[in-house]
Amino acid sequence: MAVQTVAGKSTSTSAENPQETPFGPAAALSCRECGTRYPLTPVFACLECFGPLEVAYDLPVGDPEGLRARIEAGPANIWRYAPLLPVPADVTQKQNLNPGWTKLVKADNLARELGVTGGLYVKDDSGNPTHSFKDRVVAIALEAARTFGLTTLSCSSTGNLAGAVGAAAARAGFRSCVFIPHDLEEGKVVMAAVYGGELVAIEGSYDDVNRFCSELIGDPIGEGWGFVNVNLRPYYGEGSKTLAYEIAEQLGWRLPDNLVIPIASGSQLTKIDKGLQELIKLGLVEDKPYKIFGAQAEGCSPVSAAFKAGHDVVRPVKRDTIAKSLAIGNPADGPYVLDIARRTGGAVEDVNDEQVVDAIKLLARTEGIFAETAGGVTVGVLKKLIETGQLDPAAETVVFNTGDGLKTLDAVSPTTGPTATIRPTVAAFREAGLA
Amino acid sequence: MAVQTVAGKSTSTSAENPQETPFGPAAALSCRECGTRYPLTPVFACLECFGPLEVAYDLPVGDPEGLRARIEAGPANIWRYAPLLPVPADVTQKQNLNPGWTKLVKADNLARELGVTGGLYVKDDSGNPTHSFKDRVVAIALEAARTFGLTTLSCSSTGNLAGAVGAAAARAGFRSCVFIPHDLEEGKVVMAAVYGGELVAIEGSYDDVNRFCSELIGDPIGEGWGFVNVNLRPYYGEGSKTLAYEIAEQLGWRLPDNLVIPIASGSQLTKIDKGLQELIKLGLVEDKPYKIFGAQAEGCSPVSAAFKAGHDVVRPVKRDTIAKSLAIGNPADGPYVLDIARRTGGAVEDVNDEQVVDAIKLLARTEGIFAETAGGVTVGVLKKLIETGQLDPAAETVVFNTGDGLKTLDAVSPTTGPTATIRPTVAAFREAGLA
Ligand SMILES: [Zn+2]
Ligand SMILES: [Zn+2]
Repeated sequence: MAVQTVAGKSTSTSAENPQETPFGPAAALSCRECGTRYPLTPVFACLECFGPLEVAYDLPVGDPEGLRARIEAGPANIWRYAPLLPVPADVTQKQNLNPGWTKLVKADNLARELGVTGGLYVKDDSGNPTHSFKDRVVAIALEAARTFGLTTLSCSSTGNLAGAVGAAAARAGFRSCVFIPHDLEEGKVVMAAVYGGELVAIEGSYDDVNRFCSELIGDPIGEGWGFVNVNLRPYYGEGSKTLAYEIAEQLGWRLPDNLVIPIASGSQLTKIDKGLQELIKLGLVEDKPYKIFGAQAEGCSPVSAAFKAGHDVVRPVKRDTIAKSLAIGNPADGPYVLDIARRTGGAVEDVNDEQVVDAIKLLARTEGIFAETAGGVTVGVLKKLIETGQLDPAAETVVFNTGDGLKTLDAVSPTTGPTATIRPTVAAFREAGLA
Repeated sequence: MAVQTVAGKSTSTSAENPQETPFGPAAALSCRECGTRYPLTPVFACLECFGPLEVAYDLPVGDPEGLRARIEAGPANIWRYAPLLPVPADVTQKQNLNPGWTKLVKADNLARELGVTGGLYVKDDSGNPTHSFKDRVVAIALEAARTFGLTTLSCSSTGNLAGAVGAAAARAGFRSCVFIPHDLEEGKVVMAAVYGGELVAIEGSYDDVNRFCSELIGDPIGEGWGFVNVNLRPYYGEGSKTLAYEIAEQLGWRLPDNLVIPIASGSQLTKIDKGLQELIKLGLVEDKPYKIFGAQAEGCSPVSAAFKAGHDVVRPVKRDTIAKSLAIGNPADGPYVLDIARRTGGAVEDVNDEQVVDAIKLLARTEGIFAETAGGVTVGVLKKLIETGQLDPAAETVVFNTGDGLKTLDAVSPTTGPTATIRPTVAAFREAGLA
């Protein structure tokens, strides 16, 4: 994989015929720290400064009406936004899981309970093919892998990502090889293994699994492998932009006032902000202020701690929370999250495990949405932000549920059960005080 | 609840102003056996002959182009078909879960494995809000309950229906009271309880639960209660018609050649046939032959047994299969299913539990869709129908997955696990023969 700074020529070719390039409107990879540009290859770190690379675009500015019409005529999945993603124009002809275009649920009951008067919505990504937002990011990584001629799709995971990679690879005809810690719960092993790819249990912790994967990427064995969140990470991350696009379109092409987004690595939050900025630049929505709020679980809240302390750097922490899908102790995009929260006038907050469980039940009881622990974190943080005066309840707010409660049953099972157990008679029903 | 034969007047009112009636184009309840008509009330059995009642319509015939345009301009859920359902025209303004418009997945990989050359699709209802087709039928029952002024939504269930009722009631602001056998697995109890309604565990078998519910409906306590699949059953059943509508529209307003549908009570299959017939009558699709195939699990296959024996009646059986969501030993609509399978030139077939598990894995491995056991039954039966020459692989076929594999992990967990367990070194990876 040769790495070189990008020539002017490649950029202008892409601008002239975006339909014909394998990466659509994407022009280059660009270092988030120093701005150095690289060609669109499977690399993820800047050679100059080791900063993270992200996709830079020649976006189709100047015709918002035409672009909006083109998007609206597209399929009911993330590929309606192909003109804004690093994918080929014929991506809808490829075999993939077609995630996205999940429900934006008007949550009037939850709003009433929380005292939100400005309008409250839940962006519910449990409706994705494998029931988490990971389907979005994996879909973009997969198409990059296809373009690069990679043949094995891989990742390390303790949960949602394993299923998303296994399922996407199965449908697309890729080999998959997913690495998990050997002591994962049986249910999660089944969800990762059922798609029939290689599933390798590693004797060690999740950190050991990650160290092993880094070693593998550097080894000749790793030739032809796409680790979705390592060497394909710049493409992978772009999938989260589609959450911003969908919310704006589902609101009738406009921006909400507040967004409450979970933080694991922080990538999702930063890419949603990137997507919102693009919408403004393209003229697809009116330019207006919005506030971005980050949500963490207290047992793994390095970004929240840094925000509250007024720090610009994020100090790594140990993980101890039921919100395992968010438990990244050393979040790569933490500093960018701090920057976005401060720039937009938002905040980063955290809730404890009990509050997470309460929030899962609150959302289920009010809106019939059974969220993963990550959804409990965002709804719990929204409640806390209102109670502490950090979020204006008279403003319009979107809160994210990024996964499905069926995947984290353990979080609620100790406190969730029958109202009563009775003999099968009406008399017993009456005696139990249920009539 | 006064029951009376319907007057001519009520029918013509409905025909003149379908927008203004609470049941839209629905004109009456009609006995499936003797044709006696009843007003649209919460009743479910004919007073003349005890036959099942179903909804009869004054459908908007005569303007297929206009109707098609109206549907296509509707929301991405079952309410796009409101002009064909027993719901008020303003149903989209009500609080409900908005199920439906799930993916029709072109399954080329599965087709290749099964030797299907005429085109194969999976209608994947795991994308519904609580991840089974039950959200469709509950949504219609809920709107009927609302119209009737009922305030408690109820059912007996051992699985999908409990969650669908609990979630729908929570969002719509109904009280819910769901009855389950006391020995249900913990995971299923959590899925039923998390929405915060009453969940009552009954000391007894599922049959005891049902007997108790019948007693409760007859008791004064049951006033104001809507048991979705008992006194609201005629409305409830209509939700399955939307599967037929969606498939036709998603194919570009045309009918497939073959449909492979699971059989529990048989209601879903008969309502899909009803929906297909309506599409033809309305001129929304070209009139062409189609074959309907029913799928059962061998351990509970009374309809398949009757079909093979050439019987018109279905003899009740004991249940013994992992496909619990299909395990109804005495299926109410069994005779109608036999009639439809024979009339259309289809068949009813069954597969054993091992074939169900193999089919779940086959679908996951080829298309990245993790199906509930019911989906394993349909895919397994499709395979068997082709192998035994009962289904023409050169014809276009739609196979149904009506639920989500996350809900029946137990079915696959004994035979689904890691490919290998290794130490975290590249050498160990190589030694395991995985490179
Ligand atoms: Zn750099
Ligand atoms: Zn009758």
